[in-house]
Amino acid sequence: MDRNLLGNNVITQIGILVHDIETVSQTYADFFGVEKPAWFWTDTVEKAQTEYRGNRSEARAKLAFFDMGSLQLELIEPDEHPSTWRESLDQNGEGVHHLAFVIEGMKEKVALLEQNGMPLLQKGEYTGGRYAYIDTLKPLKVILELLENDKK
Amino acid sequence: MDRNLLGNNVITQIGILVHDIETVSQTYADFFGVEKPAWFWTDTVEKAQTEYRGNRSEARAKLAFFDMGSLQLELIEPDEHPSTWRESLDQNGEGVHHLAFVIEGMKEKVALLEQNGMPLLQKGEYTGGRYAYIDTLKPLKVILELLENDKK
Repeated sequence: MDRNLLGNNVITQIGILVHDIETVSQTYADFFGVEKPAWFWTDTVEKAQTEYRGNRSEARAKLAFFDMGSLQLELIEPDEHPSTWRESLDQNGEGVHHLAFVIEGMKEKVALLEQNGMPLLQKGEYTGGRYAYIDTLKPLKVILELLENDKK
Repeated sequence: MDRNLLGNNVITQIGILVHDIETVSQTYADFFGVEKPAWFWTDTVEKAQTEYRGNRSEARAKLAFFDMGSLQLELIEPDEHPSTWRESLDQNGEGVHHLAFVIEGMKEKVALLEQNGMPLLQKGEYTGGRYAYIDTLKPLKVILELLENDKK
């Protein structure tokens, strides 16, 4: 077993939950002196095959990305369907939701983390890859997201 | 005025509040396959000249740092004296407290942010520099920390 459970320690994104992505995107753009990025909807469940706590979910979110040096800030405005985004926003309010890492071998990594007491929270597909949110709140105090991008 | 209020957009640290830095440091070390760093106390108020919401505070915290690629994860276990660390931990529990940026010209930056509706929360000195936490929770959904290091 790799001594590092993820295979690397490079944080690639910081995900932040917001109620109003349009307003917060503009605020970030003004603050950092950059253009406001266009937000976009995550894919529908048919395409994303979204599962939340083991069940298919219609959940989608609006996403906007800011390039911040070596990583991205990701703003997330979830819809009302069940998701880790909606659950965290309802329970904890706006703020940091997750730290994301690019990994290889999603199934094996998710299984390894589950064996180590860190269960899968949510997963889905996106064009060119797939994601998984892992419930690492108790041990690491923050949710981790795994991102696997298909080889081109 | 610089279009970017901080002068850069490079996140240098992510600060995470914890109740038990010894346990969480070991968990992070095991998870990422690295040595557990030694935690240390921030300086006493006499040396740090700590101010929290405009008042001198005896507050200190235990800190531990993990190098994560291009930035650091900072674990923070505050003592019971008044601080932004203690306040956030009591109100929101464990989790991400702030994103830190290295800046130049602390007084000017703090004044500029205050003029823009983002007040100083806490400040202090450390060997070789000084820090300031800014209340950017409402606009940016996370507290920012400014770090100014003295020229060597």
